[in-house]
Amino acid sequence: MPQYNAPLRDMQFVLHELLKVEDVLKTLPAHADTNRELIDQVLEEGGKFTSQVLFPLNHSGDREGCTYNKETKTVTPPKGYKEAYKQYVEAGWAALSCDPEFGGQGLPLVMNNSFYEMLNSSNQAWTMYPGLSHGAYECIHAHGSDEQKALYLPKLISGEWTGTMCLTEAHCGTDLGLLRSKAEPQADGSYKITGSKIFISAGEHDMSDNIVHLVLARLPDAPQGSKGISLFIVPKFMPNADGSLGSRNPIACGAIEEKMGIHGNATCQMNLDGAVGWLIGEPHKGLNAMFVFMNAARLGVGMQGLGLTEVAYQNALVYAKDRIQMRSLSGVKAPDKAADPIIVHPDVRRMLLTAKAYAEGGRAFCSYVALQLDKELNHPDEEVRKEAADQVALLTPVVKAFITDNAWIATSECLQVYGGHGYISEWGMEQYVRDARINMIYEGTNTIQSLDLLGRKILMDNGAKLKKFGAQVQAFIEDNGTDEAMSEFISPLADIGDKVSKLTMEIGMKAFQNPDEVGAAAVPYLRVVGHLVYAYFFAQMAKIALEKQDSGDNFYKSKLATARFYFARLLPETATLIRQARSGSANLMALDADLF
Amino acid sequence: MPQYNAPLRDMQFVLHELLKVEDVLKTLPAHADTNRELIDQVLEEGGKFTSQVLFPLNHSGDREGCTYNKETKTVTPPKGYKEAYKQYVEAGWAALSCDPEFGGQGLPLVMNNSFYEMLNSSNQAWTMYPGLSHGAYECIHAHGSDEQKALYLPKLISGEWTGTMCLTEAHCGTDLGLLRSKAEPQADGSYKITGSKIFISAGEHDMSDNIVHLVLARLPDAPQGSKGISLFIVPKFMPNADGSLGSRNPIACGAIEEKMGIHGNATCQMNLDGAVGWLIGEPHKGLNAMFVFMNAARLGVGMQGLGLTEVAYQNALVYAKDRIQMRSLSGVKAPDKAADPIIVHPDVRRMLLTAKAYAEGGRAFCSYVALQLDKELNHPDEEVRKEAADQVALLTPVVKAFITDNAWIATSECLQVYGGHGYISEWGMEQYVRDARINMIYEGTNTIQSLDLLGRKILMDNGAKLKKFGAQVQAFIEDNGTDEAMSEFISPLADIGDKVSKLTMEIGMKAFQNPDEVGAAAVPYLRVVGHLVYAYFFAQMAKIALEKQDSGDNFYKSKLATARFYFARLLPETATLIRQARSGSANLMALDADLF
Repeated sequence: MPQYNAPLRDMQFVLHELLKVEDVLKTLPAHADTNRELIDQVLEEGGKFTSQVLFPLNHSGDREGCTYNKETKTVTPPKGYKEAYKQYVEAGWAALSCDPEFGGQGLPLVMNNSFYEMLNSSNQAWTMYPGLSHGAYECIHAHGSDEQKALYLPKLISGEWTGTMCLTEAHCGTDLGLLRSKAEPQADGSYKITGSKIFISAGEHDMSDNIVHLVLARLPDAPQGSKGISLFIVPKFMPNADGSLGSRNPIACGAIEEKMGIHGNATCQMNLDGAVGWLIGEPHKGLNAMFVFMNAARLGVGMQGLGLTEVAYQNALVYAKDRIQMRSLSGVKAPDKAADPIIVHPDVRRMLLTAKAYAEGGRAFCSYVALQLDKELNHPDEEVRKEAADQVALLTPVVKAFITDNAWIATSECLQVYGGHGYISEWGMEQYVRDARINMIYEGTNTIQSLDLLGRKILMDNGAKLKKFGAQVQAFIEDNGTDEAMSEFISPLADIGDKVSKLTMEIGMKAFQNPDEVGAAAVPYLRVVGHLVYAYFFAQMAKIALEKQDSGDNFYKSKLATARFYFARLLPETATLIRQARSGSANLMALDADLF
Repeated sequence: MPQYNAPLRDMQFVLHELLKVEDVLKTLPAHADTNRELIDQVLEEGGKFTSQVLFPLNHSGDREGCTYNKETKTVTPPKGYKEAYKQYVEAGWAALSCDPEFGGQGLPLVMNNSFYEMLNSSNQAWTMYPGLSHGAYECIHAHGSDEQKALYLPKLISGEWTGTMCLTEAHCGTDLGLLRSKAEPQADGSYKITGSKIFISAGEHDMSDNIVHLVLARLPDAPQGSKGISLFIVPKFMPNADGSLGSRNPIACGAIEEKMGIHGNATCQMNLDGAVGWLIGEPHKGLNAMFVFMNAARLGVGMQGLGLTEVAYQNALVYAKDRIQMRSLSGVKAPDKAADPIIVHPDVRRMLLTAKAYAEGGRAFCSYVALQLDKELNHPDEEVRKEAADQVALLTPVVKAFITDNAWIATSECLQVYGGHGYISEWGMEQYVRDARINMIYEGTNTIQSLDLLGRKILMDNGAKLKKFGAQVQAFIEDNGTDEAMSEFISPLADIGDKVSKLTMEIGMKAFQNPDEVGAAAVPYLRVVGHLVYAYFFAQMAKIALEKQDSGDNFYKSKLATARFYFARLLPETATLIRQARSGSANLMALDADLF
């Protein structure tokens, strides 16, 4: 009963009209040939694949879940997952944005980004299998030796092998400094790794020939804490030099978790019993190497939130037009029917527009950050690369936390549009809400993202990165400050810009005296920054829509209405958030832990 | 692994120190003997029963769910449910607040209310079985004939029989005017009822000897719409005059729903195939009669939200004290451990305090409304009864929507405290979130509650009921306006009081011109009123706590900190809500439905 159609029109709007990616890509030698036609064609094919192959497996995969076999310690994903993965590999989707040197197609990340939105809209649990592989690819690509690259990258790029990241242990998630898994050096340069990992997504399954685990563990001489952790490649099957598979490595799944959602993805306990691994990068610097993976993963999680927001919106919209119930308070709208379609009711529209605005704002934001990543990786000018890298660093925690929090809000509003039917599994909405909940937790909880943003990305360089982004916003404000038609967007944008500056300074001052002020302000602060970003993108989108609203293409009317809704109903959340961020740490810290 | 202990100390604080229920009950002849000792004793026993008998079945019941047998059209609830119900009946819990004339214990609703909080904390899905029976009891008690009362009430009060409410049909939930089930009058004064109902909670099960369905249907001569609906008693087994059971009535369960949560409760499709029923109350006035049931049910749903908030908080607190992860930013707090317990981190405290404040505010609020209900039903002075009835009418939609929305927020924050473990079923938190989601939907969605509050309860009498409640708040402000220690609570309370008055007038004026303004403002408006109510109760609780903070009882220090947190971090939500409510209908209604 649920449905999904890739929002190609809005993706094209964001890529071509808002971000003008073709022009940007021309400045990047690696992507100079990627023109609009190619982008649109790939996305169209991506839309077909995701809606026709993956989406039909989403609900059934949730109901069936993964099956663990205790005897063989293997996991069987839901029906159809393996076959869909085969199609994915055969069509070359795994290689889309990977390095041509190792068999990738070398297309820009900004395209891959749009494709990942579709993947997640159609089936988040399934998408995590190739999603984690892509993370492993990036990590080995950035930190692996030439030999490691030659051995692993072609297989990960083709999709024949998949990957995982094995960080968490039962006693440490956020605090990886506590981890205990041990790596003993062997005479042949390899290591024997022993330990137990939990929450390993896609840790075991039968969809690929081999699974390349990236495992954090400690060397015997490692310093305590987070500076004594090294990163290892631990393949499920030992690969021979020619890429064929050798013996089974003693890293095995001990159990899978029962959880709230993403039932189609196997969340594994992985036991390493002297498993053979090879060091990636330098000893004790595993966390640094893993951060490459983590940053890509954090953007990927933002995309998961975006994908769920979009598909929940699409379905709630169909329901709101179809379901008749009560008459409009301002007069009958469908006299030929026994009642009006519920989309006539203001609060149903509030719920729909909340999801629509969060989907469209999130799409613009994610695509923008992905484009900055392309610049960071490929621009010939070092200065431009550095600036792009700064923006990516600043905005990554915002993508992760703001978009996933918004997805929780939006999917829940979309469920509510359905009334009682929203709570019933067959309608599909409740799964989106359950799936959305994990995105606020994994790859660093949203609290951790907010501390990363405020503590590390902003206060540690005295707000330099934020000021640069602010200058860009300010330039847009000045360019459009005299355009009367734009004033409804420019005024609140300027206002929130000023408020972010003041709030940042204020918290910075307080943090000097008491570091707990950072933790007390960080979560509402991140959402304020998120709204600044969305206000900036909605103002830009409104500008384009104002120019084209009489073009006869109703798309622009819709975009304009969404922008107006955003400024009227969602941006005002900052009034509360700023008060919360400003309220300080005393209201949180005063009470003795024993008196809670 | 999860745990629950009835919050007896806080319940006693609310009942005895805040509301002084003993004094109020003395003014009600029916309850003049209910003293503090009795109340505390019953609640203590209730705490034992719920935590020892029901709570252990909560998680297992969720995992197992209900089982439908197609052949026999019967439903088996999860293991242990039937036995627990037997214990509940044998201990007389079903009779607690029922009419002594029919075998009830006649205790006040304010006590029953606290007991229902415990029931819902320990097991919402299970509690819905007796909860719906209690609704059926109230409806027959208010509208049944003497004969009907004599036949049904003793069995419902003893708990031998249970009850349901059969309203919804596939094409009508909110809009009951569309319902199609038909009742054909028979020569013997009974009716034959035919139709199909959905979403019937506790519609079929084996926990009681008989199930008394209250069914809405149309008589042959019924006017169209909601004024042509009549209410019928349709028992599963036809009762003989002596209360023994006769033949099986053709009302049967055709299927049960797969849903997001409350898996232990059977959500049934009920098919009536010429089932024998008896009219309750007058023909065509079924909706009025059903509203007795609905109002009790709405308060009951608020209690479900409160119960989940409390149990989620208790568990998150234990976890936050136990789990060690990272060091406090303001210096090591547990030097003997490898890391600090996460309760040292400001944002973990923010999440915990959010749940704590919503639990304690909700408890005060629900208990207050239940006490007003006792006054409405039992006060000798008609004027007092009328005033109490007005307050109950005004506050019922706020109890239902505000507390259940807050429970969604609070249970989700508590899940987040657990990090990844919150998403894993065995820790219990994700069930609370899933269970909490239904409470925002059934018994009238929270949008419907907000329209009931703003449209019917406030604008229809020009704000008279709200003004009376406001005068009570104002009196408290004036009584404490010169107390310096109270000014941190009195100032924001006075401020939000003024804002509610202004906002109400403003929306009232706009609604004259455009009725969609009511629908556009109602949802944020209800939350603003909810915060006014909580600010009022937290200010009162803070006053007591200030007086006793040096008593040596740390309870008051904790209460004071919670009140301060509420005013600093939760009340400021009104800054956003007021802007949203004030933003008008244009930002929702401008876009053509086709252009979404």
